[in-house]
Amino acid sequence: MSDRYLSFVNSAWGRRLAQAIGLPQPLPLQRHRSGQAGLANPVIVAGAGRLVAPVQRLFSATDTVSATPATVKAPSTLKVQGAVFDASGMTDLPQLDALYEFFHANARRLAQHARVVVLGTAPEHCAGLPQAIVQRALEGLVRSLAKELRRAITVQLIYVAPGAEDALDSSLRFFLSRRSAYVSGQVVRLEPPVDGAVAVNWDKPFAGRRALVTGASRGIGLAIAQVLARDGAHVVCVDVPQAEASLQQAAASVGGSALPLDITAVDAAAQLQAHVSQHGAFDVVVHNAGITRDKTIAKMSETAWRSVLAVNLEAPLHLSTALLDSHGLNPGGRIVCVSSISGIAGNLGQSNYATSKAGVIGLVQGLAARAAARQVTVNAVAPGFIETQMTAHIPLMIREAGRRMNSLSQGGQPIDVAETIAWLAHPASGAVNGQVVRVCGQSLLGA
Amino acid sequence: MSDRYLSFVNSAWGRRLAQAIGLPQPLPLQRHRSGQAGLANPVIVAGAGRLVAPVQRLFSATDTVSATPATVKAPSTLKVQGAVFDASGMTDLPQLDALYEFFHANARRLAQHARVVVLGTAPEHCAGLPQAIVQRALEGLVRSLAKELRRAITVQLIYVAPGAEDALDSSLRFFLSRRSAYVSGQVVRLEPPVDGAVAVNWDKPFAGRRALVTGASRGIGLAIAQVLARDGAHVVCVDVPQAEASLQQAAASVGGSALPLDITAVDAAAQLQAHVSQHGAFDVVVHNAGITRDKTIAKMSETAWRSVLAVNLEAPLHLSTALLDSHGLNPGGRIVCVSSISGIAGNLGQSNYATSKAGVIGLVQGLAARAAARQVTVNAVAPGFIETQMTAHIPLMIREAGRRMNSLSQGGQPIDVAETIAWLAHPASGAVNGQVVRVCGQSLLGA
Repeated sequence: MSDRYLSFVNSAWGRRLAQAIGLPQPLPLQRHRSGQAGLANPVIVAGAGRLVAPVQRLFSATDTVSATPATVKAPSTLKVQGAVFDASGMTDLPQLDALYEFFHANARRLAQHARVVVLGTAPEHCAGLPQAIVQRALEGLVRSLAKELRRAITVQLIYVAPGAEDALDSSLRFFLSRRSAYVSGQVVRLEPPVDGAVAVNWDKPFAGRRALVTGASRGIGLAIAQVLARDGAHVVCVDVPQAEASLQQAAASVGGSALPLDITAVDAAAQLQAHVSQHGAFDVVVHNAGITRDKTIAKMSETAWRSVLAVNLEAPLHLSTALLDSHGLNPGGRIVCVSSISGIAGNLGQSNYATSKAGVIGLVQGLAARAAARQVTVNAVAPGFIETQMTAHIPLMIREAGRRMNSLSQGGQPIDVAETIAWLAHPASGAVNGQVVRVCGQSLLGA
Repeated sequence: MSDRYLSFVNSAWGRRLAQAIGLPQPLPLQRHRSGQAGLANPVIVAGAGRLVAPVQRLFSATDTVSATPATVKAPSTLKVQGAVFDASGMTDLPQLDALYEFFHANARRLAQHARVVVLGTAPEHCAGLPQAIVQRALEGLVRSLAKELRRAITVQLIYVAPGAEDALDSSLRFFLSRRSAYVSGQVVRLEPPVDGAVAVNWDKPFAGRRALVTGASRGIGLAIAQVLARDGAHVVCVDVPQAEASLQQAAASVGGSALPLDITAVDAAAQLQAHVSQHGAFDVVVHNAGITRDKTIAKMSETAWRSVLAVNLEAPLHLSTALLDSHGLNPGGRIVCVSSISGIAGNLGQSNYATSKAGVIGLVQGLAARAAARQVTVNAVAPGFIETQMTAHIPLMIREAGRRMNSLSQGGQPIDVAETIAWLAHPASGAVNGQVVRVCGQSLLGA
């Protein structure tokens, strides 16, 4: 759970030693705290497209530095906390040069921990071939910048479909704030929102809303419950009956309620529906519960295969469809699943886990349209190396490799996963549906 | 160009030392040689779906070991050179258990260098949600097996759309042979072919066909020209006029012709069209020419940005569309582009290169439908670490990391890229369109 190298290398002696012998020098990430202003400030807003106006609406006039031709090509030395480049209007290849000009001139102007967002139009929504090529090319630029800017700077690409222009706020507030400290090199697609506009309380977005979190008694699940509760939700904490003591404690600590439940039980959906009948439908359902049973497939027992599939994949499928079909989720509801970089890239000794977590991606993508018809979204996070009790038990050298092999050269914290889930679960995130967003510091494992 | 570690670790002393101190022990890959039987033999054919019959048609009866329940659960000790599992018929989650049973029982039966292919139905072609989930889950299994089976075994997933069942041969012959030695962990989609069935000469598939290869005077381009010529093509070798001496030599060595041409010249398309008018249309066009000009974006010159985009992206776009629109490609034609893992995952110091190579992915995906209307396919390979003069100049430690950070623990050879291109360019590969296939030994960089 504690990354001693990160502390060491940020001490006076450690810094000097690391510089001398060329060791990685990760900066401790700055994370969001209650009461802080959320948005990076000031930010440069550049580019020319249909998204400049909605971006500028988000900031007060004093928060932005517009990128006049002068600041594009000959920047001032004033450091900025972030940059937003609207590339959505680019339709032909030579226009890509504007991105070079902007980042060439401004890369050094970005402060430590700066947030960079490039906005585009997804290739599948482009009219012409050159436009589709230009928009797809943005991925290569963004992923390269995320690798080379260093200094805890993050870079993302958000593709905004026509009709989603006014549904940008929750995503920009996430990616331009400290809430997304461990998310980098990601590509997210926004579509016209599945639900209507809502009046949003940006400090307590979940006020008056009910959230269900499975596996909530410890680790990442507890962090999710804490963040949703911090932001106003009443959280129903679920864990297996054997964990009831710590579950009760967790629920009490977030002012929520405890629901001991084996999510793989044949009557699990019925138990949830009974809970809904008594207490009301949910606004947010987070399928966080998951297990690992690692072995190479030749040595893996059938039980190890079966149990991982049952907990990680079958339960989220059955509970999601049961809740959707029985109106257990309110309109404006959000389902968030937890996948994994193993589900994206595969992993040695995790054929069961990777199969289940790849299946979760199939679940999210396959259920999105059906959920949208009920004004519900369904998305997934895919964590990379997160500092938990689980990863603390990994042998030292493998743990160190897992920790450092990402663009931020450190592991994430459970709260990084929780903040990302809170963004996907946000009442104003109706434009985000069927997406898989990695929380991995741009891990080398998978693009 | 030479991997001394690979030789050392496969010597008697080297093997003992590597075992003792736990170093990676890559096996030298076995590559295809002219005159060899192409297909792995014997292979186990297992699973139950619409693809078992077309798979078995490919093999003679003595080449296959059918997976009876007995061989699934209690295998003989006979080693097999390959395995094909047809999972295309799986429609519900518990059916995934059959994959566990098969690979649990047979993983140790696979010989060194064995080829494994799982066949499925792409999620976008699935009727129900559970089916889509199961089919998507296959990716996690395949990518994990590719990482854990070791011993130079490769594992791929081929999604076969309804209507593409009879167009499997060229892909199976590639993935079940030594031609695909450095390709692993890949997911390929086959659609109903863009062109009609052709009588195929499997020994000389390109006999009577004309191929254009850019950047053909050395390195990967020369290897592409050699493989296409070996397989019967007349190759028109293109390179910049400054390289004319080596270009003439390369063309002569493959019995082809030399066409000195700056592909970024304003009249490049016109020159090609003039060539076509004189000598006839092409059947295969390989956009191999590419340059790097690495720097972080803050230090990168505008020329470095522009020239990389012009050569790597703008030229392939202009020449492809010009040839397509002027009937410079025959029906049944093939366009193959060269992307890169940098275009997928981004790379430090390669924002120009990664932008161009991500754009190539956009080109391939965006042009596929338009090309299909002319019975032409357009695909890309994305090489990982390939042993060339270029990579020989990378500093030692970075080169070693690049070489070892993949499931085969070694770099690929130019011929590995060339064989993959020859499969995509194959007259019988009309079912492969809009695909990006990595030749990277399942590099850690990107899934």
